[in-house]
Amino acid sequence: MHDRPPSVTLSDTERLNRLRLIRSDNIGPRTFLALMRHCGDAATALERLPELARRGGAARSARICTEESARAELDACSKFGVSLVAPGEMYYPPRLAMIDDAPPLLAVRGALEVLMRPMIGIVGSRNASGAGLKFAQSLARDLSDAGFVVISGLARGIDQAAHRASLAGGTVAALAGGHDRIYPPEHEELLLSLLDAGAAVSEMPLGHVARAHDFPRRNRLISGAALGIVVVEAAQRSGSLITARMANEQGREVFAVPGSPIDPRAAGTNDLIKQGATLVTDAGDIINAVQPIMARPMVLEEPDDQYSEADTDPGDRARIIALLGPSPVLLDDLIRLSGASPATVRTVLLELELAGRLERHGGGMVSLIA
Amino acid sequence: MHDRPPSVTLSDTERLNRLRLIRSDNIGPRTFLALMRHCGDAATALERLPELARRGGAARSARICTEESARAELDACSKFGVSLVAPGEMYYPPRLAMIDDAPPLLAVRGALEVLMRPMIGIVGSRNASGAGLKFAQSLARDLSDAGFVVISGLARGIDQAAHRASLAGGTVAALAGGHDRIYPPEHEELLLSLLDAGAAVSEMPLGHVARAHDFPRRNRLISGAALGIVVVEAAQRSGSLITARMANEQGREVFAVPGSPIDPRAAGTNDLIKQGATLVTDAGDIINAVQPIMARPMVLEEPDDQYSEADTDPGDRARIIALLGPSPVLLDDLIRLSGASPATVRTVLLELELAGRLERHGGGMVSLIA
Repeated sequence: MHDRPPSVTLSDTERLNRLRLIRSDNIGPRTFLALMRHCGDAATALERLPELARRGGAARSARICTEESARAELDACSKFGVSLVAPGEMYYPPRLAMIDDAPPLLAVRGALEVLMRPMIGIVGSRNASGAGLKFAQSLARDLSDAGFVVISGLARGIDQAAHRASLAGGTVAALAGGHDRIYPPEHEELLLSLLDAGAAVSEMPLGHVARAHDFPRRNRLISGAALGIVVVEAAQRSGSLITARMANEQGREVFAVPGSPIDPRAAGTNDLIKQGATLVTDAGDIINAVQPIMARPMVLEEPDDQYSEADTDPGDRARIIALLGPSPVLLDDLIRLSGASPATVRTVLLELELAGRLERHGGGMVSLIA
Repeated sequence: MHDRPPSVTLSDTERLNRLRLIRSDNIGPRTFLALMRHCGDAATALERLPELARRGGAARSARICTEESARAELDACSKFGVSLVAPGEMYYPPRLAMIDDAPPLLAVRGALEVLMRPMIGIVGSRNASGAGLKFAQSLARDLSDAGFVVISGLARGIDQAAHRASLAGGTVAALAGGHDRIYPPEHEELLLSLLDAGAAVSEMPLGHVARAHDFPRRNRLISGAALGIVVVEAAQRSGSLITARMANEQGREVFAVPGSPIDPRAAGTNDLIKQGATLVTDAGDIINAVQPIMARPMVLEEPDDQYSEADTDPGDRARIIALLGPSPVLLDDLIRLSGASPATVRTVLLELELAGRLERHGGGMVSLIA
């Protein structure tokens, strides 16, 4: 089973320039995408970066990743057996390329073919019950036997049970830190053994030690790369529920394993089912639900975002900035309320982002950084 | 909270005659209803019974309950503190009166006001887990505190846990045998204590010892009297799932309590949720779902079934009988295929029933008894 044939291959220069861009200050995946749409390629974007940030009101010029530093990262990756791939390239998980904050470059390691196959995410509590662990194992094994790749977060509990049970068929670990900074450290052996038939992916540079906020960010890779995610056990307000929310926002299927109402580890999964997640008692429930999705062609909607090349009218810029605040607002509302052209609004927002003054949220919302 | 004001009161004679009718051979609740529609009142029905059965091809005349025997039953009931009430009368559970096989006379005992209040059925395994019992208790207590009457089957396990936890607020036991033949015998004390604030109901005569097939039949009283039923724990192919199916057929809400997929006692409830039952983790889930139903007026659709008074054309009768077999067929199909009038078809079917040659199923289906 292959998910989609790859279509593009970057030149070495373009890959290097994209790496410089995404490793520069104030540039996350969404800003990267906006910049590429505005400028056409990474070289032009790097050239125009200082001017755009200045227009956005940057107090001081933001750090731009040097060519030297990017080359050093590529060399280190190469030595560590890690490749950096862009959306649309071979070994970039095809479904992950469709999300609106797809990593511009994904660091991949292992038996990379596995990344082109249909994936199912399995996530759940770190302090899982015996029943939860046992179920995660049998589910992962059955999905693996049916030809699906299990993707998870290499954490203690449900994650590692799912990885271990699907080692032979190929399993993918999405890392919150760099490839050389495995968390938790005692799962380094598990990671090495899964690379034989599976792979590890990360959007972080080598050497990056995962911090608390990197984990929810990493979770979007699990749901984004997968057809759907299964939450095996989850208390209220747990990390697995964040993954479920992301899966929902990304249009992925959400599956949840039921449990007794008097077991707090089932509170989150039972709630998910109440909210519309599909109840799962065996792999067949998942396979039946994703088969029609696999049968549909994957179409990446290329947004026809326009950016204005000309210098923005100062009155327009002032009106747009005045409409922004710390509460997220819709881009469409900004266009309507400011009376400026969509191209002008997008350009002003990009400039503000590069100046470190704007945050992008999901669903086309933006807010000013206080 | 009262469900609906009562509207009718039977005369002593009519009650006696209805009792004779329902205690006669070949007359179940559906045949009783057909007879009453055909004949207008119980006295006329008793009078016409032999003739109708003869026309249906009865080999020998079926036993008709004597006036003496019916009087004896009424006397015994009176001594035992049991009243016999008909649909539409005070203390006949209003929603139970709406099902198409409502008991023509229901034997009721205890604090009868409770039978007019909104009920929720709680059912589940006899060999329930500790978690299941604990959950059934807290659910029954919370529903009771919220003003609902818990109705169940007095069985071991979930049933008794639900009754015990709702004793103070009033709980209803639906019996499969007569009021003086409590099953299981060790729950006689529980039955007596629930009569203080609650009630017991049965459609069987005093002295009747419940047999296996009486239990599924009794289950329709639990679901029929209730706004909805909650299945707490149920293995595949268990009696509680029969109650859930009946609830569905009766248009009642079905609620199910989830459990771990590796617990066989949750297999039935998880399946119910997959099939559309509402997942329940607390009483609020149930109350929210039934509130809009309670707000709707209860309307008993009086069918405008016609019966032919004249003797049936022998050709019509032969054609209708030829269309019948051991597989259930729809009444509507019989009318269409036979070319006879609906009144004629209904009359022939009633005659066959009274001759003990026809079985009525739910959904307007009938079959010939081989």
